[in-house]
Amino acid sequence: MQANRVASLFGVQYPIVQGGMVWCSGWRLASAVSNAGGLGLVGAGSMKFDVFQHHVRRCKEATKKPFGVNVPLSRDMAQYMEFILEEKVPIVFTSAGSPKLWTQKLQSHGIKVVHVVPSCKLALKCEAAGVNAVVAEGFEAGGHNGLEEITTMALIPQVRKALAPEIPLLAAGGIASGEAMLAAMALGAEGVQIGTRFAVTQESSAAEEFKKRCTVAGEGDTYLTLKQYMPTRVMLNDYGKEARRLSESGATKAQLEEFRGKGRTKKGMFDGDVMNGELEIGQIVSACKDVPTAAEVVERIVKEFRTRNEQLAAMNL
Amino acid sequence: MQANRVASLFGVQYPIVQGGMVWCSGWRLASAVSNAGGLGLVGAGSMKFDVFQHHVRRCKEATKKPFGVNVPLSRDMAQYMEFILEEKVPIVFTSAGSPKLWTQKLQSHGIKVVHVVPSCKLALKCEAAGVNAVVAEGFEAGGHNGLEEITTMALIPQVRKALAPEIPLLAAGGIASGEAMLAAMALGAEGVQIGTRFAVTQESSAAEEFKKRCTVAGEGDTYLTLKQYMPTRVMLNDYGKEARRLSESGATKAQLEEFRGKGRTKKGMFDGDVMNGELEIGQIVSACKDVPTAAEVVERIVKEFRTRNEQLAAMNL
Repeated sequence: MQANRVASLFGVQYPIVQGGMVWCSGWRLASAVSNAGGLGLVGAGSMKFDVFQHHVRRCKEATKKPFGVNVPLSRDMAQYMEFILEEKVPIVFTSAGSPKLWTQKLQSHGIKVVHVVPSCKLALKCEAAGVNAVVAEGFEAGGHNGLEEITTMALIPQVRKALAPEIPLLAAGGIASGEAMLAAMALGAEGVQIGTRFAVTQESSAAEEFKKRCTVAGEGDTYLTLKQYMPTRVMLNDYGKEARRLSESGATKAQLEEFRGKGRTKKGMFDGDVMNGELEIGQIVSACKDVPTAAEVVERIVKEFRTRNEQLAAMNL
Repeated sequence: MQANRVASLFGVQYPIVQGGMVWCSGWRLASAVSNAGGLGLVGAGSMKFDVFQHHVRRCKEATKKPFGVNVPLSRDMAQYMEFILEEKVPIVFTSAGSPKLWTQKLQSHGIKVVHVVPSCKLALKCEAAGVNAVVAEGFEAGGHNGLEEITTMALIPQVRKALAPEIPLLAAGGIASGEAMLAAMALGAEGVQIGTRFAVTQESSAAEEFKKRCTVAGEGDTYLTLKQYMPTRVMLNDYGKEARRLSESGATKAQLEEFRGKGRTKKGMFDGDVMNGELEIGQIVSACKDVPTAAEVVERIVKEFRTRNEQLAAMNL
């Protein structure tokens, strides 16, 4: 049996990484995933600096296992990065910006750096920046997404082929089960990053109203919209439907920015206004019908993975 | 080793079905796929009735193995169906219409009927209509597609769960390799339907100019557009870019219908005007870098499937 390079890189039992999602990924979720044998991430995206400091420190107290943080690079995160260095956070996932910005500095302090991309083109930029691993995220993923709309099924084999063999690849987008994790590995990934399924867990810091809305989502209840502004997959609640209507009737970037306004994701995901807030969530939400603990999610995925892997081996052509 | 239900249903060696694509799927391609151990389909969608008669008869001469036809139900296909009954074509794939229309009549003549759907909702209509198998086709597939934009990764496990266990499920969309076929089976499919990879083969009846354009396609070169009229994944050539621009600037269904005009797919895919014609093709085209024979495609897929399946078994968690 081969060692899994993603699990080895992070020093965890399973190559299952929790997405660092806005309004969901506080210290409770991150530490629960790490304690269950995966890699939990504190998501800086929705956290003011003092909130982020609090969550990183509480996460350290709540788990003795490796954990990481997710830092979007779409704004200046220097203060956050300095704190990450001081606190010796062992793993940093970056996204939504250039992997050149922080990778070398973080690595010079012994930190592992992983960057999230939606295309081969950007995966190659990660390789040039010297990241420790790449996450390729498909069109079905929740939240911000790529302009090319490449799905996980099409994206993973092509990124695997484009990237140097020594760089481990994780798959994200549409993965909420062990069967899907196995599919991702069939496509060439060595680990998975899972957002939606962990957003809908007991330890997720999202509003209970949002989690409940997720458990009753049907197929087609999410949509990639706001494309002229910043492609984002959201639930088609009143807000999402209006976003879609505006986007498809030729609204400009400025008009969409104004419509989206400030605090729309907090309103929906944290305050629980599930009609008028922005609910960022992936397509696979329609398969998430309960609100288990994060540990239950990890256990299910591992069990499903093993069972299906045995079935596949038996159905060789 | 378990028998594969899709291969058993069709009486073929491998559960690999060639998509019945407009302008690509004549008798040469269908018979070549069937002769290679898969299931070839003559695609009626772009064929006038006399052309269809010719291709079915030639296909029968060119292979002693099972083959089928694909009949879109978006227009009145009674004449085609009568001919299929006369000629005793053993397998009929239907799409783009109600599976209630023809399933029972065809089955009463001993014909196996499979229907293609983009959602669980329509898969359940297939079950109610009594089809022999269902193809679930994801957002990444070429040509006509579902309004819900559900990707193969998200769609297959959910359709598998929704459908009665006795109905075999095939996956389509984003599948052009043995690794992807294995991924589809990890997700719960028992067979695959492959369009794009077979469109770009020597036996495909598409224009050589179209095949050549496919081999140089990059990521993001296809797009699901014409959503207000009929969601269709096309190459972003001059035609595709204009279709996208119109669709995203609020064009009405009537305006898009007029823009698309008549004969646009023939112009591109058959006549070879790769700038101004409509080139229907899937996302995975960017992974198809050559024009092999259909038999080479089948051989590669089977070999890749076996190799990756062995690797997966060795990397059990």
